[in-house]
Amino acid sequence: MIIKAVIGVLCAAVVLAIGIVIGHFGINNSSAPSWLNDVAKDVDESLIEKFLAEVDTIHIQENLRELTDVPHMATTPGDEKTVQTMLRRWQDADTGLDDAWREEYNVYLSFPDPNNPNKVTVANTVQHSIREREKAYTSDQDDPEVVQPYAAYSPAGHAKGKLVYANQGKPSDYEQLSQTLNLTGTIAITRYGGAGRGAKAINAAPYGVVGVLVYTDPLDINDGLMSDTNETYPHSWYMPPSGVERGSFNRDFGDLLTPFCLSLGIPPIPIQPIGFEDAYILICALGGDAAPSEWQGAFNCTYNYGGPGFKPTSEFNNSDVKMDIYNKEVIKNSANVMGVIRGSVEPDRYVIYGNHRDSWVHGAIDPSSGTSVMLEITRVLGRMVKQGIWRPRRSIIFGSWGAEEFGLIGSAEYTEQYFAKLSERTIAYINVDIAVFANATLRASAMPSLQNVIFKASKEVKSSTSVYEAWKLHSNRTSPTHGVIPRLGYLTGAGSDYAAFVHYLGISSIDMSYTYDRSKTNARIYPAYHTAYDTFDYASKYIDPGFVSHQAVARTAGNILIRLADSLLLPFNCSDYAEILEDYLNTAVTLYQQQLEAHKISIEPLKRAVAMFRTNAQQLEKMIHNSDLANETPLKVRRINDQLMLLDRAFLDPLAFPDKYAFRHVIWTSSSAGKATFPGLADAFAQAESSGLDSDWDKVHYHLSVVSQAIEGAASTLADVI
Amino acid sequence: MIIKAVIGVLCAAVVLAIGIVIGHFGINNSSAPSWLNDVAKDVDESLIEKFLAEVDTIHIQENLRELTDVPHMATTPGDEKTVQTMLRRWQDADTGLDDAWREEYNVYLSFPDPNNPNKVTVANTVQHSIREREKAYTSDQDDPEVVQPYAAYSPAGHAKGKLVYANQGKPSDYEQLSQTLNLTGTIAITRYGGAGRGAKAINAAPYGVVGVLVYTDPLDINDGLMSDTNETYPHSWYMPPSGVERGSFNRDFGDLLTPFCLSLGIPPIPIQPIGFEDAYILICALGGDAAPSEWQGAFNCTYNYGGPGFKPTSEFNNSDVKMDIYNKEVIKNSANVMGVIRGSVEPDRYVIYGNHRDSWVHGAIDPSSGTSVMLEITRVLGRMVKQGIWRPRRSIIFGSWGAEEFGLIGSAEYTEQYFAKLSERTIAYINVDIAVFANATLRASAMPSLQNVIFKASKEVKSSTSVYEAWKLHSNRTSPTHGVIPRLGYLTGAGSDYAAFVHYLGISSIDMSYTYDRSKTNARIYPAYHTAYDTFDYASKYIDPGFVSHQAVARTAGNILIRLADSLLLPFNCSDYAEILEDYLNTAVTLYQQQLEAHKISIEPLKRAVAMFRTNAQQLEKMIHNSDLANETPLKVRRINDQLMLLDRAFLDPLAFPDKYAFRHVIWTSSSAGKATFPGLADAFAQAESSGLDSDWDKVHYHLSVVSQAIEGAASTLADVI
Repeated sequence: MIIKAVIGVLCAAVVLAIGIVIGHFGINNSSAPSWLNDVAKDVDESLIEKFLAEVDTIHIQENLRELTDVPHMATTPGDEKTVQTMLRRWQDADTGLDDAWREEYNVYLSFPDPNNPNKVTVANTVQHSIREREKAYTSDQDDPEVVQPYAAYSPAGHAKGKLVYANQGKPSDYEQLSQTLNLTGTIAITRYGGAGRGAKAINAAPYGVVGVLVYTDPLDINDGLMSDTNETYPHSWYMPPSGVERGSFNRDFGDLLTPFCLSLGIPPIPIQPIGFEDAYILICALGGDAAPSEWQGAFNCTYNYGGPGFKPTSEFNNSDVKMDIYNKEVIKNSANVMGVIRGSVEPDRYVIYGNHRDSWVHGAIDPSSGTSVMLEITRVLGRMVKQGIWRPRRSIIFGSWGAEEFGLIGSAEYTEQYFAKLSERTIAYINVDIAVFANATLRASAMPSLQNVIFKASKEVKSSTSVYEAWKLHSNRTSPTHGVIPRLGYLTGAGSDYAAFVHYLGISSIDMSYTYDRSKTNARIYPAYHTAYDTFDYASKYIDPGFVSHQAVARTAGNILIRLADSLLLPFNCSDYAEILEDYLNTAVTLYQQQLEAHKISIEPLKRAVAMFRTNAQQLEKMIHNSDLANETPLKVRRINDQLMLLDRAFLDPLAFPDKYAFRHVIWTSSSAGKATFPGLADAFAQAESSGLDSDWDKVHYHLSVVSQAIEGAASTLADVI
Repeated sequence: MIIKAVIGVLCAAVVLAIGIVIGHFGINNSSAPSWLNDVAKDVDESLIEKFLAEVDTIHIQENLRELTDVPHMATTPGDEKTVQTMLRRWQDADTGLDDAWREEYNVYLSFPDPNNPNKVTVANTVQHSIREREKAYTSDQDDPEVVQPYAAYSPAGHAKGKLVYANQGKPSDYEQLSQTLNLTGTIAITRYGGAGRGAKAINAAPYGVVGVLVYTDPLDINDGLMSDTNETYPHSWYMPPSGVERGSFNRDFGDLLTPFCLSLGIPPIPIQPIGFEDAYILICALGGDAAPSEWQGAFNCTYNYGGPGFKPTSEFNNSDVKMDIYNKEVIKNSANVMGVIRGSVEPDRYVIYGNHRDSWVHGAIDPSSGTSVMLEITRVLGRMVKQGIWRPRRSIIFGSWGAEEFGLIGSAEYTEQYFAKLSERTIAYINVDIAVFANATLRASAMPSLQNVIFKASKEVKSSTSVYEAWKLHSNRTSPTHGVIPRLGYLTGAGSDYAAFVHYLGISSIDMSYTYDRSKTNARIYPAYHTAYDTFDYASKYIDPGFVSHQAVARTAGNILIRLADSLLLPFNCSDYAEILEDYLNTAVTLYQQQLEAHKISIEPLKRAVAMFRTNAQQLEKMIHNSDLANETPLKVRRINDQLMLLDRAFLDPLAFPDKYAFRHVIWTSSSAGKATFPGLADAFAQAESSGLDSDWDKVHYHLSVVSQAIEGAASTLADVI
């Protein structure tokens, strides 16, 4: 009986247990919806490893070969060919994206007239004509589609006058020159560097200069080398004597037709770029006094100011230089190619990755190195999506921008058209334009909040050493928080398509590439930049043989992209932002406080704002640290992520810089003062110090208020939400 | 044995069933977190019923009595008393909010000098001095804290000259007057209406006018009645003869000290308001020609232009009018009182409800009727929170703004300080300033997307008939979609604290009150407005006896507030926005298309943008309709709600109106053209049509582009997010 009873109890227990199991697991629990795991999912490290392993040098190399097949200047048939390439790749059934399409904008461009080439001549008993095309060393460079070297947006016109040498064409250069010479009616020859392209003409016009030539001095690009018999390309990466840097000579970025006003940043007088082969002949024949030592370049002669004009002893004697410029302004359709991978959990959050597609000639480095990298990233990610093994938490948007070379036009049009939705929804923008300037080390510029994810990704990309370690070796700084770390740059300028994202939209952005070992070269930029020599041959022989630096950039940028798209908590660090604001503040205090006080302007509000930013950043991080985000409501994660995503938006002030359209970010706006501090304050201070006017000191006060209020506003977005 | 077996099987079945029940319900299922129900919860209709039932007339009446105990002009001791009242109520242990605090701003105000009152005199053989204080009919009005009638921001100064009558002080009035008279050195008397307060002086100065008087004509405020023996207050709601409307004479809104520039909207010459008792004496003595019939008011004499100066036959004969104005500008601390109820699910989404606290004198109607309503709403909601029976899904922020009467200063400072976070997180702003102008009908102005929730709430507030039905009776329109509906107004002006929310932040807003039966009065506003007669006695006897209209406003506004805070899907309707854009477009086509085409300006981009808005609004609504939001990821609900919340933000363009600081909303910006269409286009068109200048037609083109791009950008935020 006892045994029976025991058996009965045991059976009952077993049956009960079975019942419990059935009840717990066997019945679909309506309170546990299927999306519950998805919303809590974090980045998958094994997937990142898979991505890193699949990024491949051969694919990048073949991408580059295809993209550089023909010259592809914006809106030309070669450009259309690259549009088709992008669409074909991104619409591929096995390795493409969810969707890809073109978006066109009617934009204002400037081209030379192929039937009436620009001419620069010296006319006297002996005639000398400046070379109209670069010398061809390979068949690439003989392509009839290679555009004549010219200055885009230089006005057409005829100018004739005595030649003078104006160094880099900075305001101070013309000022100095005008103290010796009357510049009225002269033609100025200038070298690249020191001032923007268009600025060399804008600065010249007030002195009565009627035309400007610009060339690249071998000192600035070729470490002094000049001879194409054994020194320059095809013997090395250096620029051949006839090489000419083309470029946009519009000072501002964005299409000139929109928003509805013409730029004041266009050259008022004709300007034309020439090779140093011709510049050598002209400069070494110049008369007048010797220019100062800082103005001397690499030519084996003394750079004189000009008489104005040539030495009486030169073959040109009393000759004028004559410029006949036939550039035409045209309105054409330029295409962006857009591709997307739709996010699974938060499709309304965008991580944007982009690069321009258009080049000046073949553009192997600029921009096709970046496009080759982008296509390799989309190939690997696209395949994972098509295979069904991955879909990002957030949406990823890829942009292949058009007409960047004319002033970042495609990306600027995109940000203007979709201003509201991009500003509301974009996590970050990653720009990889020239992926590899040289194969020595990573270079990255970004908002400080992104330093951490860039470091993390660069640590995970390794060959003998990690990208991170090599970077730290080449360029570093000592952080009060982190000790010695790689030096992350700032996105203060408008050098590539990140500009509209940073300055107009206030989106946290990254621009990255591989770059030089500065102990090995002083070149201002890779020597084939914007010339006919920037070809596949050049890139594969002299910039990145084996494409390993391209691969390292693809791996690093792709790793960052996946982390931004997939991390449950966005990998943004606000304390790193605070550190840079404190650094800027310290510089401002050192440089300005005494004089500000002398003008009864208090810097205390700025100090308070920065301190508040630091405090609130730490509180937010503490709150994150104390949260179990994977198990809390997804709306809590979203709330914190929104605070992180929108932080940079809080630094925008559309009224801060009334003279600089599209520059609204008060921390990163371009500055001419050259100080590592708040740009509006630095520029206003420099102006007030120079003029001494009360009205200029009022502007200093204004900018101090603008930046204090912006930082305080940003800080308040990091505080507890209510 | 069979029985035993049956019993055994039955027992086993019971045990199994118990096990299943335990397993299913008894064990905490880790895959069904506790927050799951919260995130899917929708508005609770029974809670709204409870709210409506508890809103009480007696509490509102007693609120009003307490708030109007003493005059409470901004920054005075009476203002501080109301600060303490708000804090005490909102910090009450049983009926208070989660938290309440004061926020102070140092702001630029303007007061008369109590030791040196402003004087206006006519000096001749007979002396006449304008009354310096209003006549007291009750002890309230004898309070020494009743501020002398004055024009805030009128400069101090002494002006003397012959008097002229300038109607409403509009540009056209001075223009017309100057064709008859030389206005140099004159003093102009004007009546309220037609032009802004400060504008009457700003418009006068270019004609050489040295001082301006302003009064309220009995025709415009009293339906013509004038006598205090039996016609005006305390016998009725009409303004007594010595009543004077005070006010801010700054044309712009916001503190003049920030953002860092002084307004150009301040009177350049002294201006002073006076009662119609004195205006009668002055105007009826004026010489010169008779003014045209539209300039005539209710006085029983002909309104002449002035000789300039008085009739030779009048007792004043050749006298000048002399103004001695002693106003002082002072910088003082003004307080906002803030109170919050923290949201349970989405604390980072704010529904803001506000009203100003400061008055000119006792301010029973303006603003204390609104504050009494706000306090009743917070009492009922606060009690539900303290009792633990309710916590809103989203956070509710209450604002009791300071210094509104001086130019919406408290609310504008708040929006400037917290620009970024308010712009990112605010669902809507509800403004109830003067809750009851008169007790006939609801009047509401709002963004069209909020029409639906306003209608819904107004249908649920009923006595004999619903608020909705009464409203439809008094003021209606025929909607192409909805048929005959109440007429919702537009928030195009800057009449109360909604201005900074609408125009500067682009937040969907509502302004509401009870108002007149226009068949019964032509008063421009309730007659005690900004006078010493706006007291508890006046409000409770003549504006809303029994406080039932106050109650109706509290119920309607509170109902809307709860729906905005608690609805799973935000109660915004984008198609109703599309309808108004189409209406604006149709008006623009009718009025402008022909002339635009004559100037080669195409209206097609605007048509396309409006059509795209309509299409995308419908698609969004279809997507919502096809979704089972309560059972999908809360991030999907959030995504749609963000699209709805941020719609109005997409209409902001900070560069659209460079002359109007803080006006950025291209659909609702103030306009002087008086056309029910896009304001920037309407004003630019009027200017171009009048001047005929090409540069003005370029501005028309610019504004057409601005509004087309804004609508297209807004439309793109309503499209599928990727």
